[in-house]
Amino acid sequence: MGLKILEAHKFDIEKFIENKHFEQNLDTSSEWIEKRTGIITRQFSDYGTDVMALNLAKKFKNNMENLDLIICASFSSKKRMPSVSNLVREELKNNPHCLCLDINLACSGFVAALLIAESYLLEGKRAYIFASEKISDFMDMEDRKTAILFGDGAGGVLVEKNNKLWKTDVASFSNENSLNLDENSKITMDGKKVYRFAIEEVLNSIKRLLNKNKFTGKDIDKMILHQANKRIIDHVVEKIGMDRKNCLLNLQKYGNTSAASIPLVIAENFALIKGGEKIILSGFGAGLSVVSVLMEW
Amino acid sequence: MGLKILEAHKFDIEKFIENKHFEQNLDTSSEWIEKRTGIITRQFSDYGTDVMALNLAKKFKNNMENLDLIICASFSSKKRMPSVSNLVREELKNNPHCLCLDINLACSGFVAALLIAESYLLEGKRAYIFASEKISDFMDMEDRKTAILFGDGAGGVLVEKNNKLWKTDVASFSNENSLNLDENSKITMDGKKVYRFAIEEVLNSIKRLLNKNKFTGKDIDKMILHQANKRIIDHVVEKIGMDRKNCLLNLQKYGNTSAASIPLVIAENFALIKGGEKIILSGFGAGLSVVSVLMEW
Repeated sequence: MGLKILEAHKFDIEKFIENKHFEQNLDTSSEWIEKRTGIITRQFSDYGTDVMALNLAKKFKNNMENLDLIICASFSSKKRMPSVSNLVREELKNNPHCLCLDINLACSGFVAALLIAESYLLEGKRAYIFASEKISDFMDMEDRKTAILFGDGAGGVLVEKNNKLWKTDVASFSNENSLNLDENSKITMDGKKVYRFAIEEVLNSIKRLLNKNKFTGKDIDKMILHQANKRIIDHVVEKIGMDRKNCLLNLQKYGNTSAASIPLVIAENFALIKGGEKIILSGFGAGLSVVSVLMEW
Repeated sequence: MGLKILEAHKFDIEKFIENKHFEQNLDTSSEWIEKRTGIITRQFSDYGTDVMALNLAKKFKNNMENLDLIICASFSSKKRMPSVSNLVREELKNNPHCLCLDINLACSGFVAALLIAESYLLEGKRAYIFASEKISDFMDMEDRKTAILFGDGAGGVLVEKNNKLWKTDVASFSNENSLNLDENSKITMDGKKVYRFAIEEVLNSIKRLLNKNKFTGKDIDKMILHQANKRIIDHVVEKIGMDRKNCLLNLQKYGNTSAASIPLVIAENFALIKGGEKIILSGFGAGLSVVSVLMEW
């Protein structure tokens, strides 16, 4: 059993911050940021996760009134009650018998939400899964290790349970202070630890997925990895031997938007991905966690 | 398909605040609080949701090293990265291929987590589901409508997927500013709206569950409702016509601990509930939401 993605959209912030913005206060350069991360611009939102989510929900053209599940993935939401998913259900005038959940598994949250939806839905039933992140609220703009990396964003997908290809892989490792955020504080990151984890374990996760279906990288039509760092993505693409152009990217534009990165890529490339294609999605980050899925589009 | 609860524990804070504590600063009395809510004492924790959760996890005697899922339900957690569920996985030395999730559906969060676990697990597989709430961080101690109601707490259950009775009911309604919490603020509540919702919709949810199995209240061996207010619980018990003593309570001791209230009741009454008994659990609150399950123990 699997999920069909019926529609995908992103919330438009329309205010892009260029790398050179950080040259003013940090010992860094536009070129260094682009070379080390692949990021050229990112967005910082004036709106909270709830407002971004409500505006995003309005973009959907399908009938959104008979969903069984609504999940908001976010680590940065300041809305504690009601949950953002509840507010979105109201906005969509969805029927009352819908489970609404806000979940937090940091950058792996969106793919984790897809796994939950796939197991929770009965065949033919629908869920709305979205991520809304306002990471700028928790960024230390004087820390050059993290200030340059993150951006705000929101993206979502309407899904329907079907009986197509659906293989999953989940892995969790010790966090060891590699990525931390407590309330009223700022994100701290041990970049080397996170990079090493991603290089090894995201690749391992995707290899396990391929093995489950006796696939090689050549069998994958499109891949969307969490948009953390272009070097991590390039490494995975090279090691599984897939065509570089089939790995979809937008981190050059949005930076690392945590759980929102994958739905943002899906929304921007929705017309490019054809029915029947074999797709890999993989979210990874704080936890340390990686959650991957191999699906037929 | 359903869930068997194999083990249940609570975190002991061991510091109880009596109603008379509130007489000093609020226009209220011990008798009024007890009469209107059923609450006599509650706990305020010196520890965060993460520390409570780590100590709770240590209490489990079963092998906790081969779980497929760990969920922390909380609306009050200040730990944003890594998620509390990830920290607990590490504490339990659980295998890496475990999905860890923090979820927020306020007071309905624990029962929602059970629904997610039941759909995600394969038969015979296990999950650890817990709630950890430090609500005192978000309470306005000068607001007599809310200061007297809430308490901190943590409780959890080890579950295994089985093929026994499992009927669920989910409902979500407009929040209409009835229960709100944004970051860096305090809980606000329109008590009348929440009370009216609970009186009507919790009862409706439980009636739908009974109807699904052609049960009456007399067929229910034990019931555990979210511990919000004794008058709500008494109303439901009376309307479905079940024996009062079979509705398990602890709000007189802990107050409203949000998602933690139901696992706290389960932990305290675990020896009382016998295999084969028909049990109803129902969480309800901000959203406004209600999530109920009818299960065979």
